Amino acid sequence: MSHPLRTLIEAADRAITAEDFDAVTEFYADDATLVVKPGLNVSGKPAIRRAFEAIAAHFNHSLKVGQGDMVVLEGADTALVLMESTLDAVAENGADASTVRRATFVFRKDADGRWLCVIDNSYGTDLIGAV
Amino acid sequence: MSHPLRTLIEAADRAITAEDFDAVTEFYADDATLVVKPGLNVSGKPAIRRAFEAIAAHFNHSLKVGQGDMVVLEGADTALVLMESTLDAVAENGADASTVRRATFVFRKDADGRWLCVIDNSYGTDLIGAV
Repeated sequence: MSHPLRTLIEAADRAITAEDFDAVTEFYADDATLVVKPGLNVSGKPAIRRAFEAIAAHFNHSLKVGQGDMVVLEGADTALVLMESTLDAVAENGADASTVRRATFVFRKDADGRWLCVIDNSYGTDLIGAV
Repeated sequence: MSHPLRTLIEAADRAITAEDFDAVTEFYADDATLVVKPGLNVSGKPAIRRAFEAIAAHFNHSLKVGQGDMVVLEGADTALVLMESTLDAVAENGADASTVRRATFVFRKDADGRWLCVIDNSYGTDLIGAV
């Protein structure tokens, strides 16, 4: 059986691919932080929603997000997810912008036992030296 | 000015190098998780203390831990630290066991505003495919 966080991330990625941004923001805590690109972080659901809208436009609405291997580490009602994240996309100039990242996501269990994303960093440790 | 978490991690690494395991465990939340090696995780201060004792013995008490570049991402009273971690050590057979890892640490702010480590994964995204 796959980890509940895998199921959750698969649903979030489907929402990103479908550009259902209301659904996307439901996966985040109110004061979550998203790394949009190295050096550019946004916090809070309204800013995260705007970032996903901008990312969708940047890729001419061609972005498809998928998942590869995944490791979940849990401690103190917190989970660190290490995951291969596949991005299939076409850039504005028509070039293939597909890539595979080794992402790092942090989730917290809320009072109702529901996992919410508090830090979304799809760049993983590649941010070291890039920021 | 460096981030308070850099100061904290430097102090924790000094305690590991000094084999002051009482001090080391003070940096962790009660139900924190430590990745000892790929596939072997331990949770809770007593188990974390025993793991550091075993690591010290494994390296014949030669382990010195240092810090390189660091990125801190904060969201919802949680921090994801991405950091180059330098390990200088001699293996039991006398060979140089020094290495540099791209570590991932998750910290939580407690009710008093104090940062405590909840997930310590010095292997970073290298765990993907290794577990």
